[in-house]
Amino acid sequence: MATDPRVKDDDLPRLTQRLVATYDRLGKLNHLGHCPLPRYSEVVAATQDLMELIYPGYRNREGLHRGNIGYYVGDLVDRLHDRLTQQVGRALRHEAVRDGLVGDCESVEDFEALGQAKTMLFLDRLPELREVLATDVEAAYDGDPACKGADEVIFCYPGLEAVTVQRLAHQLFDLDIPFIPRMMTEWAHGRTGIDIHPGATIGPYFFIDHGTGVVIGETCRIGSHVKLYQGVTLGALSFPKDADGKLVRDTKRHPTIEDRVVVYANATILGGRTTVGHDSVIGSSVWLTDSVEPHSTIVIEKPKLRVRGGDAAAPA
Amino acid sequence: MATDPRVKDDDLPRLTQRLVATYDRLGKLNHLGHCPLPRYSEVVAATQDLMELIYPGYRNREGLHRGNIGYYVGDLVDRLHDRLTQQVGRALRHEAVRDGLVGDCESVEDFEALGQAKTMLFLDRLPELREVLATDVEAAYDGDPACKGADEVIFCYPGLEAVTVQRLAHQLFDLDIPFIPRMMTEWAHGRTGIDIHPGATIGPYFFIDHGTGVVIGETCRIGSHVKLYQGVTLGALSFPKDADGKLVRDTKRHPTIEDRVVVYANATILGGRTTVGHDSVIGSSVWLTDSVEPHSTIVIEKPKLRVRGGDAAAPA
Amino acid sequence: MATDPRVKDDDLPRLTQRLVATYDRLGKLNHLGHCPLPRYSEVVAATQDLMELIYPGYRNREGLHRGNIGYYVGDLVDRLHDRLTQQVGRALRHEAVRDGLVGDCESVEDFEALGQAKTMLFLDRLPELREVLATDVEAAYDGDPACKGADEVIFCYPGLEAVTVQRLAHQLFDLDIPFIPRMMTEWAHGRTGIDIHPGATIGPYFFIDHGTGVVIGETCRIGSHVKLYQGVTLGALSFPKDADGKLVRDTKRHPTIEDRVVVYANATILGGRTTVGHDSVIGSSVWLTDSVEPHSTIVIEKPKLRVRGGDAAAPA
Repeated sequence: MATDPRVKDDDLPRLTQRLVATYDRLGKLNHLGHCPLPRYSEVVAATQDLMELIYPGYRNREGLHRGNIGYYVGDLVDRLHDRLTQQVGRALRHEAVRDGLVGDCESVEDFEALGQAKTMLFLDRLPELREVLATDVEAAYDGDPACKGADEVIFCYPGLEAVTVQRLAHQLFDLDIPFIPRMMTEWAHGRTGIDIHPGATIGPYFFIDHGTGVVIGETCRIGSHVKLYQGVTLGALSFPKDADGKLVRDTKRHPTIEDRVVVYANATILGGRTTVGHDSVIGSSVWLTDSVEPHSTIVIEKPKLRVRGGDAAAPA
Repeated sequence: MATDPRVKDDDLPRLTQRLVATYDRLGKLNHLGHCPLPRYSEVVAATQDLMELIYPGYRNREGLHRGNIGYYVGDLVDRLHDRLTQQVGRALRHEAVRDGLVGDCESVEDFEALGQAKTMLFLDRLPELREVLATDVEAAYDGDPACKGADEVIFCYPGLEAVTVQRLAHQLFDLDIPFIPRMMTEWAHGRTGIDIHPGATIGPYFFIDHGTGVVIGETCRIGSHVKLYQGVTLGALSFPKDADGKLVRDTKRHPTIEDRVVVYANATILGGRTTVGHDSVIGSSVWLTDSVEPHSTIVIEKPKLRVRGGDAAAPA
Repeated sequence: MATDPRVKDDDLPRLTQRLVATYDRLGKLNHLGHCPLPRYSEVVAATQDLMELIYPGYRNREGLHRGNIGYYVGDLVDRLHDRLTQQVGRALRHEAVRDGLVGDCESVEDFEALGQAKTMLFLDRLPELREVLATDVEAAYDGDPACKGADEVIFCYPGLEAVTVQRLAHQLFDLDIPFIPRMMTEWAHGRTGIDIHPGATIGPYFFIDHGTGVVIGETCRIGSHVKLYQGVTLGALSFPKDADGKLVRDTKRHPTIEDRVVVYANATILGGRTTVGHDSVIGSSVWLTDSVEPHSTIVIEKPKLRVRGGDAAAPA
């Protein structure tokens, strides 16, 4: 059992040099310079603090009661203000440098003050967000026969986790804060398998059951009391290109789902002009690229099955 | 670079007050009071301890041998007893309070003693559970040509992880312990993309390959030597409602899969009266809501494809 | 509130004994002995170090610049050398013992020296790997209208994370290092829902959008400029068995995808003899088990939908 020390003395320094050389040549893959980027671990920590503010008593701190909740929340809000101000400031500055709007990252523009202003606008919306999230919890309980109470939804349901993070990220997206909203929703995507772009607009009483594989695109508009199952895609039909062959990045590419629509597992609904009218039901595995009228029920014609063997001739 | 201190002095306390006010108004989203809830991080830690007891030497502690294994396992069992006793006691108490069975959480009923009794019944089943899990490891090796040995299954296979956690959770479910079983399976769901309700009954030699997107509902019954691929749903067809329009929560809503059935990727089998007879094969993407006889092979009639372009006229 | 001490005094030792007895009977589920296995947590730590070498400045260390990057990278390379040497040595030794090639784990064969040699061959490939990963980042930006820049791809895109880990693992696989490559790709699978076997051969400019549910099998060959969406399976059609009824483990079982092919969401392409010709488009939900010519566009014939209700007669 022995490692060869000559390798460590000679080969590792040479490898280090070769790697460092690629940091110049392939500069897009690394970030060198004195202005730090928004930091993934801090964005995740802020998201977890936000969830603690929204559902206190369920996850982290125990023993909260009316006598101490104000202290706990006040402290949490203060920490969150500092954390988000810093990260939002960094994100705004990095975007401005990348887009050439300021010469370098030590420009005179006060991105931290801008970060603070946007952070306060965001934090001010939290009480109203709790109202909306209460409707989502109610929708989950009402929609799942395996569910025994609101507490179980908050303890266990990945759909609620993904929607909570998306509703938070959507507010930051709405305040034109770059990077951070998508970092948040991709964190939730990794945890739940549910991929909702922060740009999507979602009404109250929204419920996603099971959820793995759900994809909801940036320009979707979803009404109230909508219910989706695992594997549903609300996606783009195709991507228009401009005269130079570049993707057009600012059109409505994803569908509109009106109030009280249910979409069953693995259905695919595509296209920015596709609207599913209110009170409709889209069956499992339906593939839809045209609008449907309100109150429709769309199911696939049962695919023909080929049956071989079997003690009887055909499926019963 | 400056944050405005007036914001911190004036605005944050006001926001804190507004948030705290919502904790009364939207009480279902928070838990205030002197009786703590079951704690997610402790449930996860207990699950990891259980996996260490089942597969010792593979994940955490190194250097186990016949001379020290008894000490290590004895210590782990002791810690697990305390941890589960506390969490099960909390879960039972919280359910009793929520359902109005005891007046408040400091009732005279000794939930911790009840938690200990149920914990002991559960721990006593672990040796037998190892026997069943050994059959699952064997089934994975036998069923996957990319697999080189049982060790690889235990190191790497998400299907084994999800099934291990579900078999543990199912025992707790069977002992009428609330919340904790679902917290465990949803933890595994987040890690593997495989969502198996703790209520599902699963025979030995069970193998899920790849697994992302698999959903197995609460009232499924699965025989022995069954094999599922990614994206398979064993789900409910529709949810019956009672006279008041409320969901009926205690019927068999999910299918029965008999012995030696294989279900290929993305097939969907729905309904509590649907039985797939033993020794059947359900093809990829089949959508099935009726029972099939034993020894059947069901595949979709190859969907007609529209072919445009191509150097030749049609797919070869 | 009381736990019963008699349980702890009497029952826990008895349970410990029963569990330990199963470690002999079911020895495949545990690893006892003086030679430790490759360690999952160390393999994950090495993978994270590798990603830090590839994308420095984006995730962990802040404040890197041309003046300090050489020190930081040199130190990281040195740590990685030691970590991988140890883990690769363990993996090689464990495989040799398992396969009966050496009598016991303290054989005279110097697996650590072999581990070091393979580790150095691997580390030497990192600069070239960065070149290939730069093409993947470019492909993501070019292929997603919701994407604002390369930085966003590196910050947020699970597809890039999964492909980065697979390209690293593929090099280790190519050097005949057992266990570790699959531990790495399954770690990425858990984080992203994207399951790419380390054996798959993938050309440059590869992009997976959304990604949850993607499965790419061990013997796939994928050309350059290929784009996949969520839920795509590139899998095996069936597993041939040898004369003894054992699975044949070394044939090409998975398809070949030529250059500039796009495969839309939830399409399934199966079989080792199936080739999708270059410049083809495979539509959403297509199920394909035969080869297609270059420049083909394959979409499913729109499944007939049954429409009930609706304020108008049919979907618009």
